[in-house]
Amino acid sequence: MSTPAVPSRPPSTGALRVALLGCGVVGTQVARVLTLHADAIAARVGAPVELVGIAVRDAGAPRDPAIDRALLTQDAEALVDAADIVVEVMGGTEPARSLLLRAIEGGAAVVTANKALLATDGPTLYSAADAAGVDIYFEAAVAGAIPIVRPVRESLAGDHVRKVLGIVNGTTNYVLDQMATTGLGLDEAVAQAQELGYAEADPTADVEGHDAAAKAAILASLAFHTRVSLDDVACEGITGITADDVAWAAQTGHAVKLLAIAERTAEGVSARVHPALVPLDHPLAGVRGAFNAVFVESELAGDLMFYGQGAGGAPTASAVMGDVVSAARHRVLGGKGPQESTYADLPVLPPSAALTRYQVRLVVADRPGVLAQVAHLLADHQVSIEAVRQAPATPAGDGSGPAGVAHLVITTHSATEAALAATVEAVAALEPVHEITSVLRVEGA
Amino acid sequence: MSTPAVPSRPPSTGALRVALLGCGVVGTQVARVLTLHADAIAARVGAPVELVGIAVRDAGAPRDPAIDRALLTQDAEALVDAADIVVEVMGGTEPARSLLLRAIEGGAAVVTANKALLATDGPTLYSAADAAGVDIYFEAAVAGAIPIVRPVRESLAGDHVRKVLGIVNGTTNYVLDQMATTGLGLDEAVAQAQELGYAEADPTADVEGHDAAAKAAILASLAFHTRVSLDDVACEGITGITADDVAWAAQTGHAVKLLAIAERTAEGVSARVHPALVPLDHPLAGVRGAFNAVFVESELAGDLMFYGQGAGGAPTASAVMGDVVSAARHRVLGGKGPQESTYADLPVLPPSAALTRYQVRLVVADRPGVLAQVAHLLADHQVSIEAVRQAPATPAGDGSGPAGVAHLVITTHSATEAALAATVEAVAALEPVHEITSVLRVEGA
Repeated sequence: MSTPAVPSRPPSTGALRVALLGCGVVGTQVARVLTLHADAIAARVGAPVELVGIAVRDAGAPRDPAIDRALLTQDAEALVDAADIVVEVMGGTEPARSLLLRAIEGGAAVVTANKALLATDGPTLYSAADAAGVDIYFEAAVAGAIPIVRPVRESLAGDHVRKVLGIVNGTTNYVLDQMATTGLGLDEAVAQAQELGYAEADPTADVEGHDAAAKAAILASLAFHTRVSLDDVACEGITGITADDVAWAAQTGHAVKLLAIAERTAEGVSARVHPALVPLDHPLAGVRGAFNAVFVESELAGDLMFYGQGAGGAPTASAVMGDVVSAARHRVLGGKGPQESTYADLPVLPPSAALTRYQVRLVVADRPGVLAQVAHLLADHQVSIEAVRQAPATPAGDGSGPAGVAHLVITTHSATEAALAATVEAVAALEPVHEITSVLRVEGA
Repeated sequence: MSTPAVPSRPPSTGALRVALLGCGVVGTQVARVLTLHADAIAARVGAPVELVGIAVRDAGAPRDPAIDRALLTQDAEALVDAADIVVEVMGGTEPARSLLLRAIEGGAAVVTANKALLATDGPTLYSAADAAGVDIYFEAAVAGAIPIVRPVRESLAGDHVRKVLGIVNGTTNYVLDQMATTGLGLDEAVAQAQELGYAEADPTADVEGHDAAAKAAILASLAFHTRVSLDDVACEGITGITADDVAWAAQTGHAVKLLAIAERTAEGVSARVHPALVPLDHPLAGVRGAFNAVFVESELAGDLMFYGQGAGGAPTASAVMGDVVSAARHRVLGGKGPQESTYADLPVLPPSAALTRYQVRLVVADRPGVLAQVAHLLADHQVSIEAVRQAPATPAGDGSGPAGVAHLVITTHSATEAALAATVEAVAALEPVHEITSVLRVEGA
């Protein structure tokens, strides 16, 4: 990409000029609010905020009637060059990245909802904004409507965040919730979510955890002031979760949730996404349907949780508009917004270093001494057991499973992934062990 | 109070000078953090932040060992005059009010955790800060550690808040939660809360709802940009709540919660505090023990909830320190923080105007036609019924109640308090009605 020349900018006439890049579900809502609530926004900002144009790929496509078609343009660069505040809701890496850099270098404040871009190129954008002395805001990129950026980087600025556990993908939360309440299998629950519009025709980015991983990278960077990129995030989706897993989780007092986790230890920071068992009395277990929530464990504040809608046109537009008002107020009042800072620059640890508790389910021969044999093997591998439960081999407990076998459900204390993997391999090799049915992490306990 | 002369302020030496007013549970934690985490705070602010003194009533009292006793002073005014940032955690109206005004008029930024003061004199302080061009922050005054001020006045600045429902008093939430889980009566639950340190020796301010009412006034002002003071808040505590109320609530799928409610209608805004039945699947119903939560219904974002600890030294200090860092950053970077603004200035409505759903429980003669007779009377009073449930006269449903009587549980659609009161009076006068057992509001449905 060639560096754009600093564009000429019309002198300020008092009104703040907003350029909108993208006019999909979110962009339409942002345009509606800027148009229909212009007076209220002007009162909050202390100056008029004017939508001067909307960059779209297809100027002829049908649009919401509240949108003035004269604002539509295909010349995004010219639009960016004429704006005080550039709002990017087009998604994808290019041309979003180039247009935002152009806006920043030209002295405009930028607001973006683009999680994929921030998870890969966030530090580039933050540095460019810092160098240009302009604001960059991205509340909508982390958890949709849920205010999480300001709370973490401002309200908790005098505290120390230890761990962030987020339900940041509504599709997978809906799917897991349906599996828990109806007993559906994964594929059926995904199909149902697609019918209801909670899942896309191609649900890969959601069910494989890619969407959550981008948000985990942003959350970790934000909470720990350290450059954590998508490549640093270990990611496992929900495709391996069965109806049996969900039923056994309930039996043992847990809900299965897909979590984005950012953690700080004495050695550094790490970020990961994986399904986890969450105790039913943990606030995250109560997050139902397509809702999102971000749970923060901090040194002074203790446990905090932020709950709301993580996607959708209007909710995302709420977060975007909060950022637009903040950016506009800074233009009017002077000063700078809080910059994204990576001053702490802690070491980013490989995911294998994470200490986690596990629940391992295995089918064993139903005879005396087997439990003791398995327990001994775990002890030999330095994996400490919190609880073992022996049960009939079906979660329903109705004795309908095969005769002569029992189910062991072992919950461990914290262990590294490497230690656990070696242990599971050794357990699987034991004569009375028929099958390792599942290995799931336990969080929030 | 005489207007203090503008004090002379030593020229800035780069370090920001913080004066701490009060050294109780919260003040001690704030002093510890400022002392022990000075390096981390300086990194976040971009300049050293120095605790220059702590105003106390008794300089000889025992203190946390991390506190440098040389910082203690009884001359609060001199301390205020020498500070860039004044942190008030002494509580009460005076001398807190005079000292904060002195600080503001002298050009210092102020941070306060004083809900009682803000609920009565907030607008005076906000106006003074505005006139002096200084920042006033009060995150800790609303819901302890829970970040709610920044989310509402910044993240939601481009949205419209319709209603705020807060569990903002940990003592009463603990008491109600214990009543629900153990079947204890109110007095026993309060006694238990006192033993565990969740309730004060004199629990009046908590159980009568006064503490929640102060927070309701602040929340309403914040959410609706309108001057709402403590006098505008209708307040009813939990002293009328019985073990039976809690048991019947559970029977009908509700939890009893003490709510601080701020509401905006076409006519204006209102604020109130009262116990309410909350559906068990509402996120507020899952707020257990002494935790707090603030639930926000807004136009674009939809439902949001903020959850955490509403009291205690360390959690409150977390919120105070977030404000100190923000105030310090503004001093270093220039510009102004977001000011508390009452520009919307909506009419403040009397609480009797609020439309609420009700659940009315009454004991009636157990014979045919009684339910129809009561239903007719409600219709005559224009109170619309959502559901009626007829049940044995004990919540346990074990038939242990008096023979020949039945319990009616009537849930209404929205009605004004005046309409409901007139209706209840008429129902009570019906021959087959033995007793109106309880009238409770229903929220969150």
